Formats: sequence, structure tokens, C-alpha cells
Amino acid sequence: MRVTITGGAGFLGRKVAGRLATMGKLGKRDITAMTLFDVAEPKPPAGAAFPVACLTGDIADPADAARLVDAGTGVVIHLAAVVSAQAEADFDLGWHVNLDGTRTLLEACRASGAKPRVVFTSSVATFSGGQEAVIDEATRPVPGNSYGAQKAAGELLIHDYSRKGYIDGVSLRLPTVVVRPGRPNRAASSFASSILREPFLGEEAFLPVPESFALWIASPRAATDWLIHAATLDGKALGLDRGINPPGLTVTVRDMMEVLQSVGGHAAMRLVSRVEDKEVEAIVGTWPARFRDARAKALGFRAHEGLEALVRAFLEDDLAETKALRG
Amino acid sequence: MRVTITGGAGFLGRKVAGRLATMGKLGKRDITAMTLFDVAEPKPPAGAAFPVACLTGDIADPADAARLVDAGTGVVIHLAAVVSAQAEADFDLGWHVNLDGTRTLLEACRASGAKPRVVFTSSVATFSGGQEAVIDEATRPVPGNSYGAQKAAGELLIHDYSRKGYIDGVSLRLPTVVVRPGRPNRAASSFASSILREPFLGEEAFLPVPESFALWIASPRAATDWLIHAATLDGKALGLDRGINPPGLTVTVRDMMEVLQSVGGHAAMRLVSRVEDKEVEAIVGTWPARFRDARAKALGFRAHEGLEALVRAFLEDDLAETKALRG
Repeated sequence: MRVTITGGAGFLGRKVAGRLATMGKLGKRDITAMTLFDVAEPKPPAGAAFPVACLTGDIADPADAARLVDAGTGVVIHLAAVVSAQAEADFDLGWHVNLDGTRTLLEACRASGAKPRVVFTSSVATFSGGQEAVIDEATRPVPGNSYGAQKAAGELLIHDYSRKGYIDGVSLRLPTVVVRPGRPNRAASSFASSILREPFLGEEAFLPVPESFALWIASPRAATDWLIHAATLDGKALGLDRGINPPGLTVTVRDMMEVLQSVGGHAAMRLVSRVEDKEVEAIVGTWPARFRDARAKALGFRAHEGLEALVRAFLEDDLAETKALRG
Repeated sequence: MRVTITGGAGFLGRKVAGRLATMGKLGKRDITAMTLFDVAEPKPPAGAAFPVACLTGDIADPADAARLVDAGTGVVIHLAAVVSAQAEADFDLGWHVNLDGTRTLLEACRASGAKPRVVFTSSVATFSGGQEAVIDEATRPVPGNSYGAQKAAGELLIHDYSRKGYIDGVSLRLPTVVVRPGRPNRAASSFASSILREPFLGEEAFLPVPESFALWIASPRAATDWLIHAATLDGKALGLDRGINPPGLTVTVRDMMEVLQSVGGHAAMRLVSRVEDKEVEAIVGTWPARFRDARAKALGFRAHEGLEALVRAFLEDDLAETKALRG
């Protein structure tokens, strides 16, 4: 079968593509071809035993989306999105890419007749309630930002296209992914990676929230494992509700600083300083940090590793590439 | 101010327009003009002291939507929709009218700069869980049909456009409206009106669900009152969450049959017969019947009258017109 990854040039897209190249199959089905798609040209993963098509375009353009899915497509992992702070700054672009793009991709899936498994990356940002809230799958999404509203609307598309049998969809509500490699980006949650990444590069990082602030996070390794699990799990086990809160890790900024000190030492910790950013605080302040994950665990999503393991995995997996990127 | 009603040729649109013509104002603001819009040409309400423009078109066409809102528009009551059974039968039309149409209307509101109060008619159909469920505003919409998915997605638009300050929106999740005047329509819930309407016309009605089946309903009078209240209530009192479950009435089919007998006598009751309809049962079977309405009551939405008052109001308000329509 063909596997398609949108947002294939992004860091999660590259990790998933790399893992699939190594695995060569998804569940019991051999991967015979892969399509990577993004606004910037994706690179094929190293060591793939199958052909990899690398395409660029606008996911909301039906002609571009039509090239991503054919009758042999078994799995579509839809990561392409405008991130939170950018979607907040550019209302039209956010709705265009995050809602219209998802719908156009689903229309391409429907037209293909392949009924592929579509793994949609939804987000913690679909929820609000902030530090006090405890979230489960029955909780209404009342998003505090446009990105969350767009992802919640995307989930309803996944839901209805699945119910009609046009696709076999799963919406995975990803926590804030920490540590993201590379540079700070325009996600409002960018600081959460910066404080555990920049000090290991000898760079300063800024903290826009107090140390008591709690976040719901996932490592790149856990997020990759969950996306691959979501690509293979039995759709019938989901029933009508296609949305899943994976078993993320609830941590405070203080927890993160303690692990930074224990892994990177005092010098690393001193590179982080508190700088108020009301705009970022307003966005991330609405995101809940506490989730019930019984459904995800019952569906076989693996438990999250601890925070120190998460930091050591960053050093092992991504520090060298991040350093090279910075020149 | 100008008041715009989409779906102005429909029965709720006509009732709201008629009431506003009588009132002449909404809250403290005089109504100086009204625009009615629908696919079929709406008729101006009797006795309006202000000019009424009656327009037809496609709500999802930006040029048509642009004619509905201007800088003087204070309130938009958005009733235009493809109903449940039709949206289930025609997937593309449902998403086109119910989602794209809502978005196009909101874009027209945004472009006008008027920041109008937009009253969006969402629905019980956004929920599932069926006979066992108890719903409040924090309950996730997991719709069992496309109509519900489209309305839930529309609510997210209302939510995000309101949060950004482009409109001041309220989403009112209407129960099944009973007794609808006129003819049976393509709503899956059409039977709920038929069993309390057809016998008073000497016509047979068919019951696709058992007598123990419970529904969450509202009379045309209550729905009209709530829509008008939603058009005037203080948006600041709503906060981030713009969705409201109004104080509908939970009744079983048996309750309805008993009231039919007490108002219409035995002859009326004998005109109703049980005829299985698996397609209708599949749609309405997912709709919950039990709601918590504390929020709506705190916001001043009036309590619902009893079931017998509802039936007598149909005879008083709508029976003559319904008879005339049947010729």
C-alpha cells in the first residue's frame, strides 16, 4: 500500500517517514510506496526500500490534494497545518490551511475510493479551561484560539467522513510536543521546547509563564509511536467517536527546570530567564494540562516515558542535527 | 438597526419576522429595516412599520451573502439550513449550505464592520448518546448524522468569529420543534410533529419509533421566544462559550399520544399507527432527550410551557393555515 504524509517536511513528518522507512510495513501490510507533501519540498527518508514521491503545493487546492491519494493508498497521516500563533495572527490563512486543507484532502480520499485510514493530528488547543480543567473524550472543545477551533472543526470532518464510510479516520489530540528540534517556531508553545533545547546549545531561552505553570506534553518519540499506532489500530474498536486523547505527560515548568539542571547542570539552567509575554500567556493559559487517558490506554497507545528520559532522547536523537542547523 | 433573517421563508423564519413586525424593536433598539432571505422568495410580515427586503439566492455564494448585511445591521438570525434527512441523503449539499453557507454569511458580517449579534440555530442533532444520555453545555458533540456534524462545525465558526470580535454570536441548540405546521418535511424528526398535527386534519400519521421513545422538543412559540431573547441578551454574560442548550421539554411518544387523546379525542388518536422506519430510527435514535438547562435559565431563557398548552397553541396559531395549505 501507499502511505501519504502531509507536512512531510516538518519535524514530526520526517520522524514518522524515517520510522516507516525502517519498518517497511504498517501492521501486517507492506509499504510499497510513500508520498511526502509540504509547502517546502520534503526529503525522502534514508534507507527506504520503496519509492518516495516528494511533492509541494497548497493542501487546500483540489488539484494538489488529488495527487496525494490514489486507489492504492492505505494510510494518510495528515500533519500539515498552520501553527497556533501564526493561525492567531492570520485568521484567513489558518482557516484556509487547517480547515479547508483538511476538507480538500478528505475529498481527495473520498474520490479515490480507497477508504484509507486517515490519521488527523488534532490538538490540546481544541480545549480550554486552563490549569484547573481535567479533560476526557466527552469534554466539549471550547477553544481559546483559532488554531484550536480549526482543529476541532477538522475533527468533525474526520468524524463525519468516517461515519459515512468515505475514510476510516482517527483524530489524535496531540499534546505540546517537547523537545522540538531546530529553531523556535511560531507556535505559542514554542517556549516549552526552548527551555529544554537552547541551554544545550549554549543559548539563552525565555520563559513567558511562571514555574508553577503546568503543561500536557509529549516527546517526539512518543508522538511518533502514537501516530504509527493510530495508523494501524482497528477502526471498529473506536465506534462513532473517532477522537483520542493520547497518554501525554503532565509536567510543570518547575519539573522541566529540575530535569534541565540534573541533565545539563547549573550552567544550563542559568541560561533560562523569565520574560513576560502576555500574548503567548493568553494562548497557552487556556490549554488544559490534566487529561484522563483510559481510552487511549485501552486502545493500546503506549504510556509516556518520564521527563528525564524525554530530555536524554532529545540529546541522543536531535541535538547533533539541531547544532548543525544553527551552523 | 437592520435585522436580517436567513431562512426567512421557513416556518420559524416567518414566525420570528411576524413577531418582530409586531414588536417594532429588539431590546431597546428600534428596527428600521428588515431583510428576509431564502431559496424561495420570503413574504414580508403583515403590519411591519419598517421596509422589508425579500431576497433569494445561495447563502454560500459570497455575492448573495454580501447583500444580507451592511454597516447598519444589528442582528442576523441565521435559520437557513438543509434539514437532517436531506443532509444525510445529500452529503455535499448539506456541507455546502450548513457549513459553507454559515461561513460565507459570517464573512459578510465581518466585511460589513457592523459586528452584529448573530443568532445561529444549532441543534440537538449535534449530540449523540441517545435515550441514556444527559447533556449539558460541557458535553462534546459526537453527532450521529451529517446535519449534526455541520451544525457543530458551524458553532465553532460562531465561537471563533465572536472571540475575534468580528461578530457577537450566540449558538442556540434547538430541540426538535413540535408541532411544525404545514406538511411533513425531510427532517428525520418530522414524525414528532405529524402525530400531533395530521390527526387534527383528519389525516393518518405514522410512528417510526416505540411509545417509550423520549424526545427533547420545543414549541414554535418557545423557539420564537428563545430566538428573540438570544438576539438581545448581553454577549459579555456568555464569555468564551457561545453555545446554549435552551430549556426544552423532555417528553415520550406516550405523553404525546395521551395529550392527543385528551385534546383530540379517541378518533384523533386512532389515526396514528406504528410503522417501522429503520432509516429514521437510526438518525433520531442517537439524539439525546435529557438536558440540563441551568445555564439557559440563568441567562433568562423562559421555561417551556406544558405539552397540552403546546398542542392547544398549534390549534390556535397554525391549524387554520395548515388546513388552507392542504386545500
